[in-house]
Amino acid sequence: MISDPLIWGLGLGPGDPELITLKALRILQGADVIVYPQPNDGDSLVRAIAAPYLPGGQAEIPIRAPMSTDPAPAQKAYDKAAVEIGELAGQGKKLAILCEGDPLFYGSFMYLLDRLAVDWPIGVVPGVSSLGASAAGLHMPLASRNEVVSVIPAPLEAGEIKRRIQGCDLAAIIKVGRHLDKVLGVLEELNLTGGARYIERASMVDQKILSMDELVGAKAPYFSIILVPNHD
Amino acid sequence: MISDPLIWGLGLGPGDPELITLKALRILQGADVIVYPQPNDGDSLVRAIAAPYLPGGQAEIPIRAPMSTDPAPAQKAYDKAAVEIGELAGQGKKLAILCEGDPLFYGSFMYLLDRLAVDWPIGVVPGVSSLGASAAGLHMPLASRNEVVSVIPAPLEAGEIKRRIQGCDLAAIIKVGRHLDKVLGVLEELNLTGGARYIERASMVDQKILSMDELVGAKAPYFSIILVPNHD
Repeated sequence: MISDPLIWGLGLGPGDPELITLKALRILQGADVIVYPQPNDGDSLVRAIAAPYLPGGQAEIPIRAPMSTDPAPAQKAYDKAAVEIGELAGQGKKLAILCEGDPLFYGSFMYLLDRLAVDWPIGVVPGVSSLGASAAGLHMPLASRNEVVSVIPAPLEAGEIKRRIQGCDLAAIIKVGRHLDKVLGVLEELNLTGGARYIERASMVDQKILSMDELVGAKAPYFSIILVPNHD
Repeated sequence: MISDPLIWGLGLGPGDPELITLKALRILQGADVIVYPQPNDGDSLVRAIAAPYLPGGQAEIPIRAPMSTDPAPAQKAYDKAAVEIGELAGQGKKLAILCEGDPLFYGSFMYLLDRLAVDWPIGVVPGVSSLGASAAGLHMPLASRNEVVSVIPAPLEAGEIKRRIQGCDLAAIIKVGRHLDKVLGVLEELNLTGGARYIERASMVDQKILSMDELVGAKAPYFSIILVPNHD
């Protein structure tokens, strides 16, 4: 292998630590420093996925990027982390940036990639996404043959969600969370409730599958997905 | 673990054998029988991904499902394989059905799942998809925040592909192969050639990235993807 990058983005998969890849595991265990997002109030989910495999003795850089409609504070956190990562790479340290699911599928890794790729070669290890884990948990095909799959974030406006569902054969509505009622309303309007399936925390120890009936009046966490077939 | 299923669908990832998950590896190596798709003329890609890990002594069932516009011969091949798998499970054998990428994302596993799930509990292990591998190879984010990603098979008609691209923020056009010229024409028409990126055999030893200019007049294999950002 010709001069492996010092900085890697590692997809650690959707939550079950056994869904890590051999490649991510090798690079994770060989790193001098691990970098991961951490909420201000609580533990880092992705660090928990990595925990069973950490050899001990690694330096750790948690990134606390505030969740807010104003992007400036988060941008500042990534700026600061990128400087720190660059300095360590300059000292020859090997760094692993840990990512839930796949690094480039709705993750914050891209903000670090943007900043670091100017000066450094970066390696990226793809990971199992929550989409695949949801399909596996529900035993529900995402697509076959020439079908079109669309991934639609639930925070979008109802009209927007409706229009996007109508343009595909299967919609995966992600990040349902507090948008549950809005999404259920859209599915009802489109007469698609019958075939839709819900799963939360796919592949994690507290994975839960609820029927559409059970969902009415229920609360969904951020890590929740509704798969909606829209076949004629 | 309470009575693990005897029959598993295993996502073995996009091609690089190191992108197999620990879970798929464990179940693969514990299986008595491995089942995999095999073209009539050539080797099985997914068996090649598994090859470095096979412990030896496993029985093998290759499934040869003819590629054809008439679905009947393929359906017959899956019928036959499902009967054979069911008989072996009835004898207490552990079976692993090997799948490229993710089992439920454009794979043939769903045809076996449909047939077998009537009589047997089936386990499904999600895998790294070619989509994630393509994004990783290109260092190109698939989506952030509330963006909509659509996966669009290239065999669709030009007008259909055009309409689907217009309905999303990033289009992943898959299975480009002999549809390359048609797809390039659509991108030109939509004025999206500039931001589009092409990769073939993502994560495999012969992975190749070509610029849009290099693609003109080139030939694309079946395993090829064009990522098309459609931001305003």
